[in-house]
Amino acid sequence: MRVTVARKFHFNAAHRLHNPAWTAEKNAAVFGKCNNPNYHGHNYEGIVKVTGEVDPDTGYVMDLKELAELTDRLVTERFDHKNLNLDTSEFLSLNPTAENIAIVVWNLLRREIRRDLKLSVTLYETPRNFVEYAGDE
Amino acid sequence: MRVTVARKFHFNAAHRLHNPAWTAEKNAAVFGKCNNPNYHGHNYEGIVKVTGEVDPDTGYVMDLKELAELTDRLVTERFDHKNLNLDTSEFLSLNPTAENIAIVVWNLLRREIRRDLKLSVTLYETPRNFVEYAGDE
Amino acid sequence: MRVTVARKFHFNAAHRLHNPAWTAEKNAAVFGKCNNPNYHGHNYEGIVKVTGEVDPDTGYVMDLKELAELTDRLVTERFDHKNLNLDTSEFLSLNPTAENIAIVVWNLLRREIRRDLKLSVTLYETPRNFVEYAGDE
Amino acid sequence: MRVTVARKFHFNAAHRLHNPAWTAEKNAAVFGKCNNPNYHGHNYEGIVKVTGEVDPDTGYVMDLKELAELTDRLVTERFDHKNLNLDTSEFLSLNPTAENIAIVVWNLLRREIRRDLKLSVTLYETPRNFVEYAGDE
Amino acid sequence: MRVTVARKFHFNAAHRLHNPAWTAEKNAAVFGKCNNPNYHGHNYEGIVKVTGEVDPDTGYVMDLKELAELTDRLVTERFDHKNLNLDTSEFLSLNPTAENIAIVVWNLLRREIRRDLKLSVTLYETPRNFVEYAGDE
Amino acid sequence: MRVTVARKFHFNAAHRLHNPAWTAEKNAAVFGKCNNPNYHGHNYEGIVKVTGEVDPDTGYVMDLKELAELTDRLVTERFDHKNLNLDTSEFLSLNPTAENIAIVVWNLLRREIRRDLKLSVTLYETPRNFVEYAGDE
Repeated sequence: MRVTVARKFHFNAAHRLHNPAWTAEKNAAVFGKCNNPNYHGHNYEGIVKVTGEVDPDTGYVMDLKELAELTDRLVTERFDHKNLNLDTSEFLSLNPTAENIAIVVWNLLRREIRRDLKLSVTLYETPRNFVEYAGDE
Repeated sequence: MRVTVARKFHFNAAHRLHNPAWTAEKNAAVFGKCNNPNYHGHNYEGIVKVTGEVDPDTGYVMDLKELAELTDRLVTERFDHKNLNLDTSEFLSLNPTAENIAIVVWNLLRREIRRDLKLSVTLYETPRNFVEYAGDE
Repeated sequence: MRVTVARKFHFNAAHRLHNPAWTAEKNAAVFGKCNNPNYHGHNYEGIVKVTGEVDPDTGYVMDLKELAELTDRLVTERFDHKNLNLDTSEFLSLNPTAENIAIVVWNLLRREIRRDLKLSVTLYETPRNFVEYAGDE
Repeated sequence: MRVTVARKFHFNAAHRLHNPAWTAEKNAAVFGKCNNPNYHGHNYEGIVKVTGEVDPDTGYVMDLKELAELTDRLVTERFDHKNLNLDTSEFLSLNPTAENIAIVVWNLLRREIRRDLKLSVTLYETPRNFVEYAGDE
Repeated sequence: MRVTVARKFHFNAAHRLHNPAWTAEKNAAVFGKCNNPNYHGHNYEGIVKVTGEVDPDTGYVMDLKELAELTDRLVTERFDHKNLNLDTSEFLSLNPTAENIAIVVWNLLRREIRRDLKLSVTLYETPRNFVEYAGDE
Repeated sequence: MRVTVARKFHFNAAHRLHNPAWTAEKNAAVFGKCNNPNYHGHNYEGIVKVTGEVDPDTGYVMDLKELAELTDRLVTERFDHKNLNLDTSEFLSLNPTAENIAIVVWNLLRREIRRDLKLSVTLYETPRNFVEYAGDE
């Protein structure tokens, strides 16, 4: 009996969308207001989902307290109240689009979650825009 | 790395559920209050999801501004503040159930979204009832 | 110790904003898309609030089950799946704006709620637009 | 054209997580505050989803009024305002984790929903924690 | 310039509504399912609001981090994953209705918030039912 | 019959809390992570409320389309995708706390809303923290 368990997390951060290989004009044309050189920001609201068999002893796929501690340590402490472009190693040379942030969060969590558990990450950049990434598994 | 990007949209409309091949009694029995000949209405809240590879130059699967413009032009302008049964060509002979509205919205968007991108539509008829359609792909 | 207790309710309805004393042109100019002669509609989501002393025997200001029954009987049964302009006596000659609907709901509830309890009604016409009415008390 | 239709339901209940095969110490270590022998509780908010072909006569996959009646009768009446551990036969010897509750709800609904319709259940234990179960089909 | 600042908090608890001065029949008649002797439970979601002058040095009425720490220490630690009737001194002889819980929370917070700041507490017992208490000031 | 009408608005921005009259140490001690010199950011979600008499000709206190245009022009265009500290004249020498942002938004709207209408602004800095300002009227 495979069940998916999910836990919400969140962090607030500044970012700027920018491709350093492009001219300023092309960056402005493609990224519009998101290219503001002085940055803007978001409340990122995320959902991490883990899918696997229910352990008959606990009735758990995975202890959601443990999943909350993982997202706190690996995601919120790393990104909360940060400038993603300037303050984090992950986005020094990676454009911090919602797509790329979701992939980075997924990779950070993947290393510390049991391999037999399937993992997916949903990330709301605003209440109206969001992305989902489930790896290439 | 396949990622799903999603954007919300909405429109307010009147509709009536009715099958013209049936008697009034059968329509009332099947559709109940939704068969009211004077119509009722909803705030339709939708989510369009597009799945594909992340472009390494932009970090985007698809520009969400472009997706927002598509839903505004193809969905909101067409259906907002309309009577779906009387004012739209799509539902002149198609019963405007949530299922059929989601299929119509999916078909309208499908024509203008790149074929290598997978598309799905979620439509909330009320905060408590919703439907999802992802084509037959 | 005066406490406010609140209960949500909802109904789905069609309506049209129109002033029969005006020309078609003036109605279109003032009410825009809301003047569509074929109607449009909304999921109306409401909150009724009642303020008064806590009864020391029950710990209640008012039994919320009773308040839910009142909103079901007086509001939802009357307006749900109706065309407000055509199907209800309240709006035969009153423009069904959110403001006027909130006032009508307040008056319907006021008659059956104890006079020493203060009453207010919040009505969401959409998730983005809402009104509040608390009487002239 | 396969479409998914979904309906929300909810019930409020007390529960305690406990494995009677374990010592009190191990139960406290694994389940933490959820092992409180005096119980705690939740507002369980659920979503039942049914996937199938759209009936061309009705435009429905399944009448959502019927689905609402099923969840009322099979889920809400059974669990609402109950102590899951003491008052329900389902959890007398099954630990009432969110995972197990979702599986029990799915099994209760599965018996009364047409076999050609795919079924899934999402259950929010809190606004921040939820689980999903879609059977082993 | 008086501004209100607000912070959300939450706790999950079991409770039972009961008046020991009444017969079992009267308790069942008044409190219905909420009188279940085995308890039921809720996710209590609260909002604490503090109103006062903005400090020109900080731009704060009150540091919301401090308000979050107060609600964690005074409310969540006290009530989370508890049986309100059995595990808390506050409700040993006070019926744990939403009204009384809001008053208790308000009194707990009032002692540790500056007297020149006005205080109010909103408490959602379910997403559909809530209460508000602002003291008798 | 005085009614309150309300409309939601939103903007995404970067900011930093900082008092230039203080040492770096004091700024860090008071504002914590919000003092990050590289900025962080939020999705600011607001509600503007206007209270007044219902016009008997329109059934409106104020046309919510007009209120939406006001918040778009005066608030969203000014602050969306901006760094509040660097890109806006309003916060060049005013600390952009939620309290101060709400006061600034209120003052911007006040100038263009009829004086006989009462105005209030609610601003969510995160889904868990918000402020309200109604002027000193």
